[in-house]
Amino acid sequence: MQGDQEPLGEFDLIDRYFASGRPGASGAPGTPGAQVANRRTDVILGIGDDAALLRCLEGSDLVAAVDTLVAGRHFPEGSAPRSIGHRSLAVNLSDLAAMGATPAWATLALTLPSAERSWLEGFSAGFMELAAAHGVELVGGDTTAGPLTISVQILGQVERGSALRRGGAQPGDVLAVTGTLGDAGAGLALVTGQATAEDRVAAAELIERFEYPMPRVQFGSSARGIASAAMDLSDGLAGDLPKFARASGLAAHVDVGRLPLSGALRSSATVAQAREWALAAGDDYELLVAVPAQRFDELAAVASRLNLTFTAIGDLRRGTGITWALDGQPFAAPARGYDHFR
Amino acid sequence: MQGDQEPLGEFDLIDRYFASGRPGASGAPGTPGAQVANRRTDVILGIGDDAALLRCLEGSDLVAAVDTLVAGRHFPEGSAPRSIGHRSLAVNLSDLAAMGATPAWATLALTLPSAERSWLEGFSAGFMELAAAHGVELVGGDTTAGPLTISVQILGQVERGSALRRGGAQPGDVLAVTGTLGDAGAGLALVTGQATAEDRVAAAELIERFEYPMPRVQFGSSARGIASAAMDLSDGLAGDLPKFARASGLAAHVDVGRLPLSGALRSSATVAQAREWALAAGDDYELLVAVPAQRFDELAAVASRLNLTFTAIGDLRRGTGITWALDGQPFAAPARGYDHFR
Repeated sequence: MQGDQEPLGEFDLIDRYFASGRPGASGAPGTPGAQVANRRTDVILGIGDDAALLRCLEGSDLVAAVDTLVAGRHFPEGSAPRSIGHRSLAVNLSDLAAMGATPAWATLALTLPSAERSWLEGFSAGFMELAAAHGVELVGGDTTAGPLTISVQILGQVERGSALRRGGAQPGDVLAVTGTLGDAGAGLALVTGQATAEDRVAAAELIERFEYPMPRVQFGSSARGIASAAMDLSDGLAGDLPKFARASGLAAHVDVGRLPLSGALRSSATVAQAREWALAAGDDYELLVAVPAQRFDELAAVASRLNLTFTAIGDLRRGTGITWALDGQPFAAPARGYDHFR
Repeated sequence: MQGDQEPLGEFDLIDRYFASGRPGASGAPGTPGAQVANRRTDVILGIGDDAALLRCLEGSDLVAAVDTLVAGRHFPEGSAPRSIGHRSLAVNLSDLAAMGATPAWATLALTLPSAERSWLEGFSAGFMELAAAHGVELVGGDTTAGPLTISVQILGQVERGSALRRGGAQPGDVLAVTGTLGDAGAGLALVTGQATAEDRVAAAELIERFEYPMPRVQFGSSARGIASAAMDLSDGLAGDLPKFARASGLAAHVDVGRLPLSGALRSSATVAQAREWALAAGDDYELLVAVPAQRFDELAAVASRLNLTFTAIGDLRRGTGITWALDGQPFAAPARGYDHFR
């Protein structure tokens, strides 16, 4: 019987906990703690060789993104490993969602202080469950010893020429967001003890929004050909909107009173606090979208079919910079969202 | 005038030091310290959006690999940033070389304790110079604050069905390696003070082999259709050969006396020490190849045209396990190469 702190070879780690069930991969379903992985027919060679061999769809473009999570910075030290596994893939899927792309393959670079069996089981469960939900196969991995750092690269595909970009917005476009904002910020504050909530059900909902963000992949894909630009909200609207507007060479105006706030958030904080989380806290992984005014209803109907709220919060205009208003008066938004090295 | 320890926004970091010269990327050539980047026509959208948009070659398969370098583990703390930048891409290019693939695009996930201008200039120079030499464009990046960790994902292409794999070797194949082995291990020992060398020219040569490994991309690509299997040597022959032989379900025999040792290595160490580095030290990034005996000369001619030595060191046989011999006697090879978490 082996203990929880069993030393594991680096080849074994990926092989055992992220078992593909492919020939050559020893960690078949049946290995305790192993995930039953998604298996795609366009993966010619998966984990186990020097590199993966993948077959791109004809007539499609390849879409690639990378995102890193560092313990103590992107999630609290001691977070549930299942949440860390989920989030490390979710933040990357969210980038593909913003392009309107369909996810296909991922690679995982996992640096961790020690190979704890229970941690690896939780992490791989969170990662692989979300991968399976989006039809993603893990095709490459690398584990190294060191401070907990997770880099995921996601690869997806999109019909040639149809990808959503940040820079496609036009003056007069409606500015809109999927879902609700600020929940993840509130959830993180609850997890770290910076905030408290009397309503336990609401608190659990907010924490869930931080720990298990749901990337808006289906909405992004359906928005192609309707939306004129899209971006995912990782750093908070106050930090991300300036980048979004600048990419199209436009100014943006936001009516802060229209920011979509969930019932859980409104029942757990003052409106002012809720708006601050919505603007500056980040981690929501909703989509920020520009859409021609005459096509807003069409896109709202897409969201509705996906049981997703879709809210107009302002518009894009000629010029530069962002103006924020509340009840018809100028509003002082937090200066910026989350940024490393500041 | 800004100091060396200027705080930099994470967007700026990639944008400034790995400038693509693309529209939307502010860090144009002319920014002090910025690299003039390689720019490929198959990159539809590079750094600056949520994800990169790439056009795959028709009739080709996509090849993907990821490798991470951690300070103090894969390179000594305080290593020259230019070497770290070079190595972080080189180890990934080496994986593509082992598949016979042609590199195309890379993404970089850079976690670093602080944004030091001089460090970033050196790192980006090492990374981008090697990228340019191999026609690779950096298409995505992510910088986060934390302990120095570098994950690179490389994407390449290979004519459909022609990729080299680990598992294609046949009984009777010659086992051969490119270049010389053990130099990088000696170089690392010299850098860390675990070894000394009187011959300064030789010492510099060995250190160069550790700090600036040259991935055998051209050889790998030319070996397609001739070699039956290939793998890159990152962990030392004693650690990598068992994986290589197992992938083809074969045994391997090595004549340790035939291991190719450079003049620099032989002039700096005893033969016994040189062989130990060649077998167990790793970091050489040469290619381990299986080739049908009747095609060995053809592959040696390919190597010769690339000014690369190519040395038969043994053969592949029916069965399992590795046998090592020296002067006709069994030889006790080091049990294994480099492995994390052991």
